[in-house]
Amino acid sequence: MTRPLRLKKNADRRLKSGHLWLYSNEIDIAETPLKGLEVGEQVIVEAANGKPMGLAYVNPNSLICARIVSRDPSMRLDRSLLVHRLNQALALRQSLFDKPFYRLVHGEADLLPGLVIDRYAEVLVVQLNTAGMEAVKDELLDALDKVLSPACVVLRNDTSGRRQEGLSEVVEVVKGELPEQVLLEENGVQFAAPVLDGQKTGWFYDHRINRAWLNQRVAGKRVLDLFSYVGGWGVQAAAHGASEVLCVDASESALDRVAENAALNGQHERVAVGHGDAFEALAALKADGEKFDVIVLDPPAFIKRRKDIANGERAYARLNRDAMRLLGRDGLLLSASCSMHLAQDRLVDVVRGAVRHQDRQGQILFQGHQGPDHPVHPAIPETAYLKALGVRVFRD
Amino acid sequence: MTRPLRLKKNADRRLKSGHLWLYSNEIDIAETPLKGLEVGEQVIVEAANGKPMGLAYVNPNSLICARIVSRDPSMRLDRSLLVHRLNQALALRQSLFDKPFYRLVHGEADLLPGLVIDRYAEVLVVQLNTAGMEAVKDELLDALDKVLSPACVVLRNDTSGRRQEGLSEVVEVVKGELPEQVLLEENGVQFAAPVLDGQKTGWFYDHRINRAWLNQRVAGKRVLDLFSYVGGWGVQAAAHGASEVLCVDASESALDRVAENAALNGQHERVAVGHGDAFEALAALKADGEKFDVIVLDPPAFIKRRKDIANGERAYARLNRDAMRLLGRDGLLLSASCSMHLAQDRLVDVVRGAVRHQDRQGQILFQGHQGPDHPVHPAIPETAYLKALGVRVFRD
Repeated sequence: MTRPLRLKKNADRRLKSGHLWLYSNEIDIAETPLKGLEVGEQVIVEAANGKPMGLAYVNPNSLICARIVSRDPSMRLDRSLLVHRLNQALALRQSLFDKPFYRLVHGEADLLPGLVIDRYAEVLVVQLNTAGMEAVKDELLDALDKVLSPACVVLRNDTSGRRQEGLSEVVEVVKGELPEQVLLEENGVQFAAPVLDGQKTGWFYDHRINRAWLNQRVAGKRVLDLFSYVGGWGVQAAAHGASEVLCVDASESALDRVAENAALNGQHERVAVGHGDAFEALAALKADGEKFDVIVLDPPAFIKRRKDIANGERAYARLNRDAMRLLGRDGLLLSASCSMHLAQDRLVDVVRGAVRHQDRQGQILFQGHQGPDHPVHPAIPETAYLKALGVRVFRD
Repeated sequence: MTRPLRLKKNADRRLKSGHLWLYSNEIDIAETPLKGLEVGEQVIVEAANGKPMGLAYVNPNSLICARIVSRDPSMRLDRSLLVHRLNQALALRQSLFDKPFYRLVHGEADLLPGLVIDRYAEVLVVQLNTAGMEAVKDELLDALDKVLSPACVVLRNDTSGRRQEGLSEVVEVVKGELPEQVLLEENGVQFAAPVLDGQKTGWFYDHRINRAWLNQRVAGKRVLDLFSYVGGWGVQAAAHGASEVLCVDASESALDRVAENAALNGQHERVAVGHGDAFEALAALKADGEKFDVIVLDPPAFIKRRKDIANGERAYARLNRDAMRLLGRDGLLLSASCSMHLAQDRLVDVVRGAVRHQDRQGQILFQGHQGPDHPVHPAIPETAYLKALGVRVFRD
């Protein structure tokens, strides 16, 4: 018997608009005490008048205390529903891509709240970011077998989301054997993704279309890839004809992978690496009088929480300003942000400020977002986080 | 001797931020009476303390009473500066496109306020939207000869911008002879543009990348192109493998051109046309039980002025809702808006509302903007106007 979760009066508005989250202060805890529920338990969400609104799973200890799984209160999040949802997610990706390298499940936007799955052909890397998803782990692994029978499944359960949900952080191979190299292809370029110890699931598929745009602009150019990680931008630029690429990152192991990925594509002679802090690297390059035709800024999220907005915007501003000094007379800046809390127009303003600071002219040629395997849920602004601006910077 | 235009105290802030416009209420008219200036005259803009800030041209009768042409007060907007700016604009387009079909000049974003030029190979279609540009018409035509020596130049000076500036509205061929067909190619598909009597300059290059995105999603699909104009979306969809396309427009002459453009690409059997009001057409298609796999909504601007926002948003909402009813079980909606006053997140909300209204699920796969030959000026939000959402709409 599925227990109810009763909403306060008027607390159903967000749900009716299509959103999937409930906050703990929206629950009528006199009627249905959150404390009485198990972590990860499935419940029937009811409006204040008792009308069932859908199926959710709960975490009484989390600010987002429940996430809707289905608008049909008669459903259960079980193997059967997981198979259905995975098939829907897979159908979309198969219609989008020729090759099996993509984000297969993007959480709420695929109606699987708290679940992320990246696919590297036969290897699936899974993140169960909520107690509700953790509670159906076995059913999910079963469902994945049914839908894709992957050779290998890795749980990259070392996420901050899990910390917030009070879940253990652990990385484990739960099916098959992990190949020595986990390969992927993006925009026609080969990479090995460090799925066990790299960032997130090992790779960032979300910038695929932004990289595709930049790849068309780099032939014969000297490219700086700051925060390069394993070379997603830089190695692709080299493979698309850049004359010279410098990848800078604070992680030596990431830079080792840049070199490997460059070699995978026969580009090891055109891709150099520089180890260090991005801001220090920019200062050193400036001191050496280095100039680049194209600069890629794809930093980690400088704004993780709403209260970081002011500081974060200052960091983006400084980064863009410092980088722009290294651009030649008519250069291209690719300025990205993965901070959900940095609005698109604020990133435009960061670029504007940097352009003005140097008394140059700027033209925004491209406004990119996360790729189609990271769909945005139209009712959940939180699912839209990535932006990339392609900016021509020139002297008049 | 170039006369000055003195700003009020603190009225230089927008200029310093990089914007190019001055409003009449920002002028110190005691010091420099606007009424004393000629329509279209060039002036030196001065800060309140008398410091020269740049060169502008004025229209004392317009709300935007001056537009900055150069940050260097020693410049003049003459043939020489026009040649320089045209060369800068051309260099960008030549780096972006293999073929000579694009917007060559996009006003403020190309540092040529009030000037629009669309290029159809040897034919240039020019719009002089301000008195300041009108005043240098001869120099501009000279400069165009120097930079591109076009075979034909058409002035499509029948714009609402000119009306607001108190300029005459006239369409004329000012150089050469207009060929019977003005051809262009976009995303590999051929079109004839009605440059004399079509909308704007005859063609909308701004959706190029959004159409390119859609073109990849239409093979084997049944496509509805509402507000089709001369078939930019629909004929491209047919050429990219759509099984069947219906183009609907309120203009019979536009639909004649759809048929011609379809024939140009050997697609006349796959492209049908329907004449009528878009909303009525949607109702009729619904009554007939018609269903489509892909629907394109690229309406004219429903919000022309700020005061139209509420009504305009309602019109977008109704359009998206009515159209979505015609989508099959797992369909794709391309929902566009060229209203500068409709913010990106408001269009997302329009789509959200339509999806909820039909109790369907939506995934925004694509957020598109104007193409790179319509650059955005980072300090002038008004130069960013176009958005297109690619939305998967499905039943769970």
